[in-house]
Amino acid sequence: MSGRYSVSVIGLGLMGGSFARALRGFRDCVITGWDIDPEITALAQNLGVTDRAGASLTKAVEDADICLFCAGPQGILDGVAQCAGVFKAGSVVSEICGVKTQLSQMIAQMLPDNVRYIGLHPMAGKEIGGFHNSDANLFKNAGFILVPPENCDEDALSLMRELSLFVGAGRVVVNNAREHDALIAYSSDLPHIAATALVRSYPENLTLAHTAGAFRDCTRIADIDAELWAGLLSLSGPHLLSQLDAYIKNLQEVRSALAGGDSAALRDFLQIAGDNKRRIKTL
Amino acid sequence: MSGRYSVSVIGLGLMGGSFARALRGFRDCVITGWDIDPEITALAQNLGVTDRAGASLTKAVEDADICLFCAGPQGILDGVAQCAGVFKAGSVVSEICGVKTQLSQMIAQMLPDNVRYIGLHPMAGKEIGGFHNSDANLFKNAGFILVPPENCDEDALSLMRELSLFVGAGRVVVNNAREHDALIAYSSDLPHIAATALVRSYPENLTLAHTAGAFRDCTRIADIDAELWAGLLSLSGPHLLSQLDAYIKNLQEVRSALAGGDSAALRDFLQIAGDNKRRIKTL
Repeated sequence: MSGRYSVSVIGLGLMGGSFARALRGFRDCVITGWDIDPEITALAQNLGVTDRAGASLTKAVEDADICLFCAGPQGILDGVAQCAGVFKAGSVVSEICGVKTQLSQMIAQMLPDNVRYIGLHPMAGKEIGGFHNSDANLFKNAGFILVPPENCDEDALSLMRELSLFVGAGRVVVNNAREHDALIAYSSDLPHIAATALVRSYPENLTLAHTAGAFRDCTRIADIDAELWAGLLSLSGPHLLSQLDAYIKNLQEVRSALAGGDSAALRDFLQIAGDNKRRIKTL
Repeated sequence: MSGRYSVSVIGLGLMGGSFARALRGFRDCVITGWDIDPEITALAQNLGVTDRAGASLTKAVEDADICLFCAGPQGILDGVAQCAGVFKAGSVVSEICGVKTQLSQMIAQMLPDNVRYIGLHPMAGKEIGGFHNSDANLFKNAGFILVPPENCDEDALSLMRELSLFVGAGRVVVNNAREHDALIAYSSDLPHIAATALVRSYPENLTLAHTAGAFRDCTRIADIDAELWAGLLSLSGPHLLSQLDAYIKNLQEVRSALAGGDSAALRDFLQIAGDNKRRIKTL
């Protein structure tokens, strides 16, 4: 297979499996897959989702032009650490973790100078994980955030932009790690907390008949992978705390209006929120 | 038309329009419609959604066997007050307001003894209102809550159960007004506050590319009719305050875990919430 462009996907769960499927045809590449579960590594190849099953993690990355790590934060760090001495000179290493500041610094420290790193955050997912739920169309029209380090190599950035558009990105934006984490604390971490807090407790005589679309939509993501998200939310740290404090403050504004019977204040609150919601759709 | 079963729908917005459409064929009834906007009253008849356009509010209800008021709380109260002396003896008056305790008491006081009242709350809706968005399938598989007064007439209750199932209810439950309001404060009012508070403020460098399904779903209902919902939330009063306090307390539990770096507590919180979310689907 030497001579062909080579992309390796490390971690073949929902996200990695979807990337492997969506990358079919990208630069006429050969796709190598590896998962910590050898059965998944083999299954992906048997189904033709990948062209090659990595015999080991380091074997899976050694000739890759692009190496995309699709795992939780610790899995990514462990994987990059193991492969740091193996990556091909000039190759690009990327990962899809939803929190970047600490992780990208740690990765940058591990990589040799001749290996470029670009963080990637596809704004797509499902509440059900695993290779069996992976989908070539998962990224269609999704926002993709590229998170380059300081003094980033422009070729590496434009390569990852090309990859993002190839797998279906509707829009690609570039943020540094700090900007990214502050924005995602708001647009992803906070909704996960808002949704789970809604079902942290519930009335004992509740039935499904008492719930409609409002409840279903607001709590869809509460069916959560607790282990994965405890890790992500912990990493999000100060950005998330500041968003959560703003959220609690907003809720207390409603509480005051309700408790004081101030329905004009309540209407103003709802009006501003509604206007913002409609404005965000245009940003 | 005398002799045929007669159903009047008062208020032909999203809900009333959808009821008029979905009631086609119920007990082979003639459907009379009336809206505060005469053009909508006429349009509904011209489109065949209703059989008759009420020449006035009182004319629209005078021969009805079932009279269903589909408006905001004040519109319902004003309408019932105007029609109180006109309703046919033995007829059933109903309304679809999402808050029942005060409203049902006020309606019961207005109605003569020979007119029966049953509150109805279909757990269905859309974030866009108006007759033009009404839909015969809006109620398919929705939960319907029947809210009878004390000493309720069993025939009236079973008639409204029959009507609910006819328009598509997936499940019909019966609650008294206080139970209803406590449950709905949790399952509908609280999600509307949770969603609007998420967009009461947002980071200035946010773009749509930073948002994914989590954000979209959690804030869908923030595109809200501020006037209508300020009224509904105000009526929900103490029930809603108690649910909102519980929600803020749950959020503060997350805040403590985050601030203290206690990722085990965070994971436990998410695990309980996830288990509850999955359990609610089976209730």
